[in-house]
Amino acid sequence: MDIKELYESYEKYLDKEITVCAWIRKHRKQKEIGFIELSDGTCFKKLQVVYDLSTKDFDMVQKIHFGSSIKVTGSLVKLERGGEIELKAKEIELVGDCPEDYPIQPKKHTREFLREQAYLRPRTTLFTAVFRVRSIAAMAVHQYFTSHGFLYLQAPILTASDCEGAGEMFQITTQDLDKIAETGAVDYAKEFFKKKVSLSVSTQLEAETFAQAFKKVYTFGPTFRADPSNTPYHAAEFWQIEPEVAFCDLDGIMEIAEDMLRFVIGYVLEHAKEEIKFLDETVEEGLIDKLTRTMNAEFKRVTYKECIDILKKADRVWEYVPEYGADIAKEHEKYLTEYFDCPLFITMWPKELKSFYMKQMEDGTVAGADLELPGIGETFGMSQREEDYDKLITRMKELDMKLEEYDWYLGLRKYGTCKRAGFGIGFERLLMYLTGMKNIRDVIAYPRTEGSCKF
Amino acid sequence: MDIKELYESYEKYLDKEITVCAWIRKHRKQKEIGFIELSDGTCFKKLQVVYDLSTKDFDMVQKIHFGSSIKVTGSLVKLERGGEIELKAKEIELVGDCPEDYPIQPKKHTREFLREQAYLRPRTTLFTAVFRVRSIAAMAVHQYFTSHGFLYLQAPILTASDCEGAGEMFQITTQDLDKIAETGAVDYAKEFFKKKVSLSVSTQLEAETFAQAFKKVYTFGPTFRADPSNTPYHAAEFWQIEPEVAFCDLDGIMEIAEDMLRFVIGYVLEHAKEEIKFLDETVEEGLIDKLTRTMNAEFKRVTYKECIDILKKADRVWEYVPEYGADIAKEHEKYLTEYFDCPLFITMWPKELKSFYMKQMEDGTVAGADLELPGIGETFGMSQREEDYDKLITRMKELDMKLEEYDWYLGLRKYGTCKRAGFGIGFERLLMYLTGMKNIRDVIAYPRTEGSCKF
Repeated sequence: MDIKELYESYEKYLDKEITVCAWIRKHRKQKEIGFIELSDGTCFKKLQVVYDLSTKDFDMVQKIHFGSSIKVTGSLVKLERGGEIELKAKEIELVGDCPEDYPIQPKKHTREFLREQAYLRPRTTLFTAVFRVRSIAAMAVHQYFTSHGFLYLQAPILTASDCEGAGEMFQITTQDLDKIAETGAVDYAKEFFKKKVSLSVSTQLEAETFAQAFKKVYTFGPTFRADPSNTPYHAAEFWQIEPEVAFCDLDGIMEIAEDMLRFVIGYVLEHAKEEIKFLDETVEEGLIDKLTRTMNAEFKRVTYKECIDILKKADRVWEYVPEYGADIAKEHEKYLTEYFDCPLFITMWPKELKSFYMKQMEDGTVAGADLELPGIGETFGMSQREEDYDKLITRMKELDMKLEEYDWYLGLRKYGTCKRAGFGIGFERLLMYLTGMKNIRDVIAYPRTEGSCKF
Repeated sequence: MDIKELYESYEKYLDKEITVCAWIRKHRKQKEIGFIELSDGTCFKKLQVVYDLSTKDFDMVQKIHFGSSIKVTGSLVKLERGGEIELKAKEIELVGDCPEDYPIQPKKHTREFLREQAYLRPRTTLFTAVFRVRSIAAMAVHQYFTSHGFLYLQAPILTASDCEGAGEMFQITTQDLDKIAETGAVDYAKEFFKKKVSLSVSTQLEAETFAQAFKKVYTFGPTFRADPSNTPYHAAEFWQIEPEVAFCDLDGIMEIAEDMLRFVIGYVLEHAKEEIKFLDETVEEGLIDKLTRTMNAEFKRVTYKECIDILKKADRVWEYVPEYGADIAKEHEKYLTEYFDCPLFITMWPKELKSFYMKQMEDGTVAGADLELPGIGETFGMSQREEDYDKLITRMKELDMKLEEYDWYLGLRKYGTCKRAGFGIGFERLLMYLTGMKNIRDVIAYPRTEGSCKF
């Protein structure tokens, strides 16, 4: 029986004999009595088990190690003090021992240490909370888009084009690298795909092809960047959410981005109540308050030019002096979100700062926006896409792009083109915001970063 | 406005002026009147638009090409005959033209041809149905596991181990293959991860690590096999659903597999009613009946030995003579599912035929099972996993596996081990069953097979 079920319907089981299989998360021993905190991971709460001399094999039970899996048969009782439930053990059976060299001990471990033990860390209270939130937030994303009529596109990872030139790519090969090294020349005819193929950095271009058939689509899957930045924000493998909507402009996509964010926060606050409370208490003080404020906030829309104006007028000494045409730095983002004291879309950027596919306006800007959240700055970007064949091709030529690799992407502008817009969220960045965790390595089950690919 | 919304709440919009943006899927022109079938992909049904001499720019409208995107303003009327709704156009605006070299024409195209035009095929009625079913079935999978308390694990794609040796892997590199070829030796110190890293063929091993913390987990993401088999069933990139449950045996996991399959079929029949009806009419006659029967069938459990007994007694000439110890061939599967006339779990296989991680029994079998469905044979496999450290390590040594690559996997058997079981479903195989499509290339947005990686 799941401990979750026990808590949700405990009245059904009170004073009845039940059996629970789970792992020992704490074991306090006294002379004639013992207390075990039991977790099976089905819910955040642990179950208290009490045993005493009336329990079968009392002496053996006292020797069971922390971390072991056990099977407990006993009766569920409700305590008068506090009203909590606990399991009074008739029999406790050792299922799987956990010897004393177990790396996780009932004490505080650093997050760095736990990263080295990534296959064991989901057993800790902290990571039980983090990965449950991840699971729930993922479901929130699916729920949001499904209930709004979006088609879920499972886009390819293996790709022969490099999307937006958005980052360094991992190339794949089915030849032995050692053999290639011996031969003196790569023979692509021997490759599985007979050509150079890499891992996708973004599914946007493919999502656009489906948006032109289904109007509203989203992708949600892993993407890859061979980015050696050793920061708390970068991982080589990360999940992205990329919706794409036909007949939609920048205003429309900002509305969807805002609406989705509110929904996901609300869903997580509702479905991961205990986990979020724990994270608020132990990881980021004020987490619930921060999330609730964002959920209820007005989201402002301010142009890039207005932002630079405000920054220029600010009575500050900047590390990077704000300039028209230059990017908005972290310190500027911080100032702006404090200035407006609410989530902020910075819109209409100089085209030189943004990707080739963004819709070009007559004044040299593009219809793109970045969402800035108080406390963390830029979270994700969105844009209306250039739907005009000639304008798009002119821009791609300016940027020296290989047009022949994009014939199908250009084809979308030839055959029944229309306005369209989309955004891309790094799911892990969103999770860092939702959990308060400060390092991307701590919201990914098995993080892949430069020099690190274990488990 | 979405066409879906129009159909769902048409009473709200009857005789009111509305605007719809969508693509022309059919255009019939008469002298003083014209009919346009409009699709925006938000629902399977198309919307009929009627225009006549009272419509603005009648002559221009008559020239609008098939495939173009248009914006129609008009009033929604309900037809007396049939009770269908149609949009009487006051004004039709051309949004994006679709010139006559458009590869998709309003006629029957072969599926082979459409594969070449994969970025346009979602605009056809057939692929509108197929990819909507894919999206709905994916949501069904998430709904099933979420509502049963499973944690969704987004497992890594990049991996330094080869899981089960289940298939040829794609290796990744961040060095230029041409440069490697020039140097005469691979320098792994120059690689992003400083070692050999490949794309995962299965997430099972990682799922097991999480099952030992959360009890019930599942993964659902892309996996990769560099399998050159040029068959209708093999793709190099495919999505897998891999649940893993702690404190669960083979019987328990068969129950979950059965329950999940029933749920997904029921969900698709309910949420993709029109798509499935269309597929039944045009792709696989009797599709709805087949799915309904499977959903309601009793699933039998028969041991491998019993199956071989039955096959040996059969009055048949076999291409492969059934033998104890030999695999069960396609022709045998067909015979057995007809013999039992229901879905069938074939259980307790000789260990030589199955993977290293399956639970070993005293009689030389393993606690694994394959699910066979009438009409298609083997669909997916499941097993109880070996939870005993010593037995597992002995088997791995027999198979000459590199133990040091699996230290963490073995660690699971050292620290709080317990019974556990899981299964793995190739999502595309399931989709072929659900849609009746006979080629895996036709249920994947952008299929990757040997020599083929376009878009």
